[in-house]
Amino acid sequence: MEPGPLSRPAEQGRCVSGSPSAGAACPASLPSTAGAEPGSRPAAVAAVLPAGGCGERMGVRTPKQFCRVLERPLISYTLQALERVCWIKDIVVAVTRENMEAMRNIIQRYGHKRISLAEAGATRHRSIFNGLKALAEDQPDCKLTKPEVVIIHDAVRPFVDEDILLRVVTAANEHGAAGAIRPLVSTVISPSADGCLDHSLDRAKHRASEMPQAFLFDVIYEAYQQCSDYDLEFGTECLQLALKYCHTKAKLLEGSPDLWKVTYKQDLYAAESMIKEKISQEICVIENTKDEESVGYLLKEVLRNELNFVNITSTPLEHTGGNIQNFLIAQCYSFICVNVVSSNFQETQKFLGTLEESSLPLLYPVVVVLDEQKLQESLRQGASIIGALVKERSSALAGQLLVA
Amino acid sequence: MEPGPLSRPAEQGRCVSGSPSAGAACPASLPSTAGAEPGSRPAAVAAVLPAGGCGERMGVRTPKQFCRVLERPLISYTLQALERVCWIKDIVVAVTRENMEAMRNIIQRYGHKRISLAEAGATRHRSIFNGLKALAEDQPDCKLTKPEVVIIHDAVRPFVDEDILLRVVTAANEHGAAGAIRPLVSTVISPSADGCLDHSLDRAKHRASEMPQAFLFDVIYEAYQQCSDYDLEFGTECLQLALKYCHTKAKLLEGSPDLWKVTYKQDLYAAESMIKEKISQEICVIENTKDEESVGYLLKEVLRNELNFVNITSTPLEHTGGNIQNFLIAQCYSFICVNVVSSNFQETQKFLGTLEESSLPLLYPVVVVLDEQKLQESLRQGASIIGALVKERSSALAGQLLVA
Repeated sequence: MEPGPLSRPAEQGRCVSGSPSAGAACPASLPSTAGAEPGSRPAAVAAVLPAGGCGERMGVRTPKQFCRVLERPLISYTLQALERVCWIKDIVVAVTRENMEAMRNIIQRYGHKRISLAEAGATRHRSIFNGLKALAEDQPDCKLTKPEVVIIHDAVRPFVDEDILLRVVTAANEHGAAGAIRPLVSTVISPSADGCLDHSLDRAKHRASEMPQAFLFDVIYEAYQQCSDYDLEFGTECLQLALKYCHTKAKLLEGSPDLWKVTYKQDLYAAESMIKEKISQEICVIENTKDEESVGYLLKEVLRNELNFVNITSTPLEHTGGNIQNFLIAQCYSFICVNVVSSNFQETQKFLGTLEESSLPLLYPVVVVLDEQKLQESLRQGASIIGALVKERSSALAGQLLVA
Repeated sequence: MEPGPLSRPAEQGRCVSGSPSAGAACPASLPSTAGAEPGSRPAAVAAVLPAGGCGERMGVRTPKQFCRVLERPLISYTLQALERVCWIKDIVVAVTRENMEAMRNIIQRYGHKRISLAEAGATRHRSIFNGLKALAEDQPDCKLTKPEVVIIHDAVRPFVDEDILLRVVTAANEHGAAGAIRPLVSTVISPSADGCLDHSLDRAKHRASEMPQAFLFDVIYEAYQQCSDYDLEFGTECLQLALKYCHTKAKLLEGSPDLWKVTYKQDLYAAESMIKEKISQEICVIENTKDEESVGYLLKEVLRNELNFVNITSTPLEHTGGNIQNFLIAQCYSFICVNVVSSNFQETQKFLGTLEESSLPLLYPVVVVLDEQKLQESLRQGASIIGALVKERSSALAGQLLVA
């Protein structure tokens, strides 16, 4: 029996974080701005994420989309990446019945917005079909608005950016279907029945089909409605369904290497390092002085040299007063509090308390003491220690006193 | 003009580390023991590593095989993995003329053995061909012994283990050629000339061809001698050459996910994490007491619980006297020196000196002080800090005093 899409069971998830300021981070870069004809502008874009996989290739019990990276489930990073794109109106995640509650908790815990849940099927295609049904107006329990264009993305590709999403949506609007591709890393071969080489494929003539993909909703929904049980059971390629059942030839677009799919243990390691790198790029130095000649100001300059390509901002401690929302929008997860008068830690303590109450994967508090006698050398060493702490985010070092 | 193989320019590299004890780590597990017929036992196995790539896919200037992972070039890990297999008699590395000197330095710096260098060609196939020529007896300047079976492996797959090497060599001995394969992670598609989808391939009927591969030397050398310039220029698959020119159908063997090829920046991150995990698996606790009730003994027990799957040995400080070779054989890169009488650091200092003179990627010295008043809690926290230091190996924390 085909399990039907649930009627927006994550309704509460959609309302968890209703902060009006959250939308402020999203510029008005609608798909129509990408050079497409005004007439071809998709008024409504939604996304479907099949997340029903069991993660058997990872060799761990937890399905890979729920594996924790810096204490946060991988799928939460992917949802965050999609949410940042303000022109994606709805995101339908297809999860298995047994993971439905866990998924609701993730939505609540990390304040995800615009998410609806559908029940995953036994295969990837069945999960996507269920996600599409949740968006289709011909379904009796549909409460979402049918989009013109639907993005299909994997829950385990957290590094998708707005550029490629915009490109696939724009191309889908024109061609009916579009998908990201990458050059093949290994040569593809076809084995014979006895486990020997039958032939190898010309690497230059083939590509790996990656995600995201986008479709005119009517095209892909029609394809899924028409397709055979065999396709739903053993097929792997949505673009192929659009071609086979709707004669829609998908436009193929070169994606970046960041689109890779977290599949094996080493991919989880890579994802962790990529996320660490990303969140260590935004550092906020908080000082209890406005003096531009202060140690905090000098440290900021040294840090900028120590850590390449890092965006370091600073703000006086008194301006942080409880409003952590601004930092969330700026995606800042690294705070360096500089006390120039070492005896007054009360304000710093209060700020730390506010941070701890938020749901950020934090820099665990560590104190670094600079030697004022040898300020220059001390600042360099301090920046090197702070750089390592920001990059590695080791909870085991919380509460330590380090000396530069 | 085809550059010929150089006449063992790395001769000095082969003699750098002539320690007779180095062979002791290698059990007598010759390919013949893997269930192959006694008559089919290859008397001599050599390996060829094409390492002439320029790493353009990585997006960095340094070719990826020379990128540093924990301060050591990636290729050095791959060479180490092959050297551990005592039945591989010679390893021929094909590097470009401009990287020849850098490669000689790597061989010297890390004491690599059984390595010869050949000059890389403009393409992967030409580099392999040059490596094979260095092993072929019909070449005038050949000084190596022609092997019966030759392994071809990539410099950027550092996690190859003896098991898969033995399996490909044994299968090559029987079938003439053999190679490791993996299931496809993404569906493979064929684009049409206008950049649209022409057709997608059935993922279940195709595999990714990985490395290592092995061949009867005469088969693959004949194939390279016969093959066209077009093959040498645009071909990517050695197994295909053996099929096309020698009618040898390669046996395909399922490899582990660890065989993946370091291609993009995220792969380098993953490799670093994998290597960190690997070298943090072997820990040696060095105590200045033989007392089995000592803090060192208790710490070892707590550490065993803290870090899963770790092999923790211990030795009295007095037994370490200068002979670091034993630790190298055991592949131990993590040492925890426990001083139960805190005033006597002389012996510890001497041991640290010995470690620093060796070429190990070390655990940078950090002092952890346990609170003897709350020993149990202190040990747990100490183990957690030590575990993080061993795993993360951050040079920025060298010289720090941490308190558990």
